[in-house]
Amino acid sequence: MDRRSFLKNTALGGSAAAVTSLAAPAYAQGNRTLTMVTTWGRGLAGVFDAAQRAADNINGMADGALTIEVKGAGELVGAFEVFDAVTAGQADLYHGADYYFVGQHPAYAFFTSVPFGMTAQELVNWYYHGEGAAFHDELGEIFGLKSFLAGNTGAQAGGWFSKEINGPEDFNGLKFRMPGLGGLALGKLGASVQNLPGSEVYQALASGAIDGTEWIGPWADEKAGFQEITKTYYTAGFHEPGAGLSIGMNRDVFNELTPAQQKMVEIGCAEAHQWNLAQFLSNNGAALQRLQSAGVKTMQFPDSVWDAFGEASDAVHQENMGDDIYKRVHDSYMASMASSSSWIQKSDGAYTAQRDRVLG
Amino acid sequence: MDRRSFLKNTALGGSAAAVTSLAAPAYAQGNRTLTMVTTWGRGLAGVFDAAQRAADNINGMADGALTIEVKGAGELVGAFEVFDAVTAGQADLYHGADYYFVGQHPAYAFFTSVPFGMTAQELVNWYYHGEGAAFHDELGEIFGLKSFLAGNTGAQAGGWFSKEINGPEDFNGLKFRMPGLGGLALGKLGASVQNLPGSEVYQALASGAIDGTEWIGPWADEKAGFQEITKTYYTAGFHEPGAGLSIGMNRDVFNELTPAQQKMVEIGCAEAHQWNLAQFLSNNGAALQRLQSAGVKTMQFPDSVWDAFGEASDAVHQENMGDDIYKRVHDSYMASMASSSSWIQKSDGAYTAQRDRVLG
Repeated sequence: MDRRSFLKNTALGGSAAAVTSLAAPAYAQGNRTLTMVTTWGRGLAGVFDAAQRAADNINGMADGALTIEVKGAGELVGAFEVFDAVTAGQADLYHGADYYFVGQHPAYAFFTSVPFGMTAQELVNWYYHGEGAAFHDELGEIFGLKSFLAGNTGAQAGGWFSKEINGPEDFNGLKFRMPGLGGLALGKLGASVQNLPGSEVYQALASGAIDGTEWIGPWADEKAGFQEITKTYYTAGFHEPGAGLSIGMNRDVFNELTPAQQKMVEIGCAEAHQWNLAQFLSNNGAALQRLQSAGVKTMQFPDSVWDAFGEASDAVHQENMGDDIYKRVHDSYMASMASSSSWIQKSDGAYTAQRDRVLG
Repeated sequence: MDRRSFLKNTALGGSAAAVTSLAAPAYAQGNRTLTMVTTWGRGLAGVFDAAQRAADNINGMADGALTIEVKGAGELVGAFEVFDAVTAGQADLYHGADYYFVGQHPAYAFFTSVPFGMTAQELVNWYYHGEGAAFHDELGEIFGLKSFLAGNTGAQAGGWFSKEINGPEDFNGLKFRMPGLGGLALGKLGASVQNLPGSEVYQALASGAIDGTEWIGPWADEKAGFQEITKTYYTAGFHEPGAGLSIGMNRDVFNELTPAQQKMVEIGCAEAHQWNLAQFLSNNGAALQRLQSAGVKTMQFPDSVWDAFGEASDAVHQENMGDDIYKRVHDSYMASMASSSSWIQKSDGAYTAQRDRVLG
């Protein structure tokens, strides 16, 4: 944070203690423990692992000078309360999916995933070599956070349904769990969309409170046990084509760290992103086979549904374009996606098509 | 390294000094500078950047206790001499493409890329969540190295040609630069294959010493200037569908680091992998547009050529299967690739196909 943005931040509610660091950085002496709250039930496959990985990375490198303790959802604050807990200084940092916080600012959606948006690789391209991280930081300045990508689920499955989807009209009246802008888009097709934290989804589906749900993908979904309730599973979805998970650290806390510790946080989070994405993607193939062996039928949505998804997704974006930050993030994101995708189609895409054809 | 493998390593030529660390770890006191040699000319786009990124990560986190100095190819030793320089203790670590060292052991090819092999994401899945890193370490034990992935170019372009390729027979007699197992496969099609370090390729192409070359992809290739010599560019290639770059540290040097410093090396290298892959993939789209504006014609190989590539690639693998390590690495790699790919096709692949169709 530069001095100008620091002043802006403290004006918006930074703690009085932090003001003393205007004169000179006041690095914490000795050993320090930071509390990480999360949007994940303790042990929730993949997503809680990402939080723990980031903490382990930082703790392992900080050699005792810094120790991050990870709390599951509900242990200190509830899943959706973590953002406010960190901005208020009740906890030092959170790990979660930033699209849970579109109520705080709609542009947070881009740092998880938006419908018809980036794959995980495209998100990484924009985040680390485009304007992504700078925009994440611009939002963080408003709320007193320092944010980092620190996990990714990969392209999420279309989800679990109580019936087959043959056209967009089949979403009309469907009670479906889907957070973020994807959920808003699904609402435009007439679905009754609910936003539930991961640890509450199974019960909602089992009780019939919802007719269907997306969660993540075969590995995490199998652990959640949705196959015990329904057998109809759509493998490709429009809503989260590469869902980033983020850490948001209280900006005053971050500024009190030494430069080396700040670097450990930055690099430790980024490594957790790569590690976690690979965790999901290395486990999904075998999990899908197990699900199929257990009688799950895998499907793809027909083109008419994808067309409707596309229209609804764009409509959701347009509703937010009056917000200056949202518009700038959106335009940057879409331009980067088009550029990334133009090459990936011609190289990786053409290669894998030929590999699949030749190897059979 | 456990005690057993340490003994194995020292028996193969570990330094006498390291033997004292059998009793207790002898962590280096005070500040220490390590020399990194590389297979890259200083400043070579993307690949030298990956080496520098890994060093900067580690240096930034080590707070002066550890400083890695990066040398370009030829500054201390030549590009292809880095492996031996590090195993002999002449330098502390190298950054390079491990397939340059198939002469030391053919299984090193898998840690860069093999023809008809893994994409970058599939490599990451296998490396960090399959057996990849463990196999890399097994090879390292033989040679006294501790190895880490620390960069990736993404799927490499098919390359630059003096004529169009209409069938596999067009490779007969063609003088072409291609390292690794891909080059061996191309040789089976009758090509005269050369293995040149990156900094020597432009001159060889300009002088007519070679008829064509692959290097990396549009961004790095444009910087190398190949478009000044020929205008025929194949965007997808069979030979390096996601080329990992590696750091190999002298194992005794690694063992002398503190546990926190070892973690900084591990995490700093892994972050460099993600950062570097995104660097290439975020720059390639715009670079390809510039190349096309400058008159470069982009092409794809016909199916008959891909079929021939496929046969030749498998033949190269079969020639190495008598080596126990090679066979175990190969079988693990291929099984992981099939599993990773089976899900990615049904999610990411199906999604991007629909996105391209709907967005036009």
